[in-house]
Amino acid sequence: MSDLPSRVEITEEGPREAFQIEPGPIPTEDKIALIDALSGTGLRRIQVASFVSPKIVPGWADAEAVVGGFAPRPGVEYTALWFNASGLRRAMGFRDRLSIFGSVTVTASEAFTKRNLNRTQAEQLVAQRANIAAHREAGVVMERVSVQAAFGCNWGGEVTAEAALDVLSDAMALAKEEGCDIRRITLADSMGWATPLRIERLVGAVRSRFPEQEIVLHLHDTRGLGIACAAAGLRLGVARFDAAVAGLGGCPFAGQPGAPGNIATEELVFLCEEMGVETGVDLPALLETAHLAERIVGHPCPSNLLRSGIRRAA
Amino acid sequence: MSDLPSRVEITEEGPREAFQIEPGPIPTEDKIALIDALSGTGLRRIQVASFVSPKIVPGWADAEAVVGGFAPRPGVEYTALWFNASGLRRAMGFRDRLSIFGSVTVTASEAFTKRNLNRTQAEQLVAQRANIAAHREAGVVMERVSVQAAFGCNWGGEVTAEAALDVLSDAMALAKEEGCDIRRITLADSMGWATPLRIERLVGAVRSRFPEQEIVLHLHDTRGLGIACAAAGLRLGVARFDAAVAGLGGCPFAGQPGAPGNIATEELVFLCEEMGVETGVDLPALLETAHLAERIVGHPCPSNLLRSGIRRAA
Repeated sequence: MSDLPSRVEITEEGPREAFQIEPGPIPTEDKIALIDALSGTGLRRIQVASFVSPKIVPGWADAEAVVGGFAPRPGVEYTALWFNASGLRRAMGFRDRLSIFGSVTVTASEAFTKRNLNRTQAEQLVAQRANIAAHREAGVVMERVSVQAAFGCNWGGEVTAEAALDVLSDAMALAKEEGCDIRRITLADSMGWATPLRIERLVGAVRSRFPEQEIVLHLHDTRGLGIACAAAGLRLGVARFDAAVAGLGGCPFAGQPGAPGNIATEELVFLCEEMGVETGVDLPALLETAHLAERIVGHPCPSNLLRSGIRRAA
Repeated sequence: MSDLPSRVEITEEGPREAFQIEPGPIPTEDKIALIDALSGTGLRRIQVASFVSPKIVPGWADAEAVVGGFAPRPGVEYTALWFNASGLRRAMGFRDRLSIFGSVTVTASEAFTKRNLNRTQAEQLVAQRANIAAHREAGVVMERVSVQAAFGCNWGGEVTAEAALDVLSDAMALAKEEGCDIRRITLADSMGWATPLRIERLVGAVRSRFPEQEIVLHLHDTRGLGIACAAAGLRLGVARFDAAVAGLGGCPFAGQPGAPGNIATEELVFLCEEMGVETGVDLPALLETAHLAERIVGHPCPSNLLRSGIRRAA
């Protein structure tokens, strides 16, 4: 009936996701404090910053100060995000502190690609050759193919599993042509269009086509089905998830200000624990960190578990 | 792989759940407005009030005015809640407006029974004879057995499926002895202790023992797993759920002020629609009603779908 993994790897994306979208200026030292608190919870992968243009994302104008400022904890891998050669160069300045790998990134929705990147999907695919070349020049391995809006988007509607698989297959073919050794596929539900059934369809289709690839689910809880989708993924043996402490974040291009963001790391950890799946995370410590995150952003965050606590028997 | 029902019946419990727990006094006309808005969404069962002592639950001191005040809509069944003969008498005054049936109610946790009712589980079971007698005298059918805290409680911890099944079996035996024709079993997760795996275990165990009974799931989203639990229930063919618009409510005895309450009706409806399960509910109308509910209680409610909207393609 189920193929539950014995253990999952969680990439904590709260800092990167939150500070790109929160309206208020957040002090650099608060960003660093959150990262250092997260690394104390047992999380082993933390995405700490986005090297993007401060004109487009003012919240990450201090990316260098944040990445230079946190206290690296042995055994924890710190990652960052970038979208072009200039971002990659900035990240490369922190090779000693960051785990640096590249992603071939495509989008399963034409409408979202145009809106977000002002490109067609075909142009976005071609642009991946330059992306791969930039990483090759920098000596950085392209580790994964990432499909954004893999389940649907607010502008183009639902994306079928077939359509997402087509986009993914084109990207995998291009990566192969370019000599990349892809090991992971991220299916990103950037705007909360996934449902448990659609997780099953797409994960099943991707598995059949690319059985050697590890699948990563990046889920948003925008419409309340995020944890149900994570449960569906776990059932299928998916063992790698992205999440954000307190449910921070959102999609800056989704046209839904105030909409809930990523699935909350503490709810994912709780789900895993209750299903007998190991996470390595200390849940009470993570809940404390979620409270810290809430204090830093200065408003209530969508995580339900954060409101209620774990409340084992008193 | 799955036994999805083609259609589910949802009992909307938002009015009853919310107005027992909201701290501020809510005007009677607002309660009535919410009920009348709900009956316009396609929901066919709405629990509109609780006939309890105003000393214990001041929020329902106006139960009579609310039940006498809403505009009954043909095809919609209105229900209420009571816990003793005096409450039943008050409900019976509205036989023309309410669908009145009785429940044999037991609790799967000794600690919660003591805390909530100041009784042992054994005493609570015995008290069900008087409860049945009161209904018999009033000519009211005992329709269901309801198991509170069926998955766990904040005071006693986890309740195993075996323990819940024992409590249920004792109640079913007593109901049979008393000549009741029980048709439904409600498994109530009063404090959010259910998880998808535990839903499968308990629903499976109850089905095996009482195959002729319809199972109703009453889920709370206290710790973020409510919709994942509903998805697990749907997969097992459960076709009757309680829910509360906007995720109103909570458990007044759970010792968690501010903790999220019932699963949000709109998230349940959205889940069902996306799984191809009919609900009869107009989701956009329900979302408007959820916004009304939020305005009435005067604070943000936990429903994520309410924050983001359904956002079909623009």
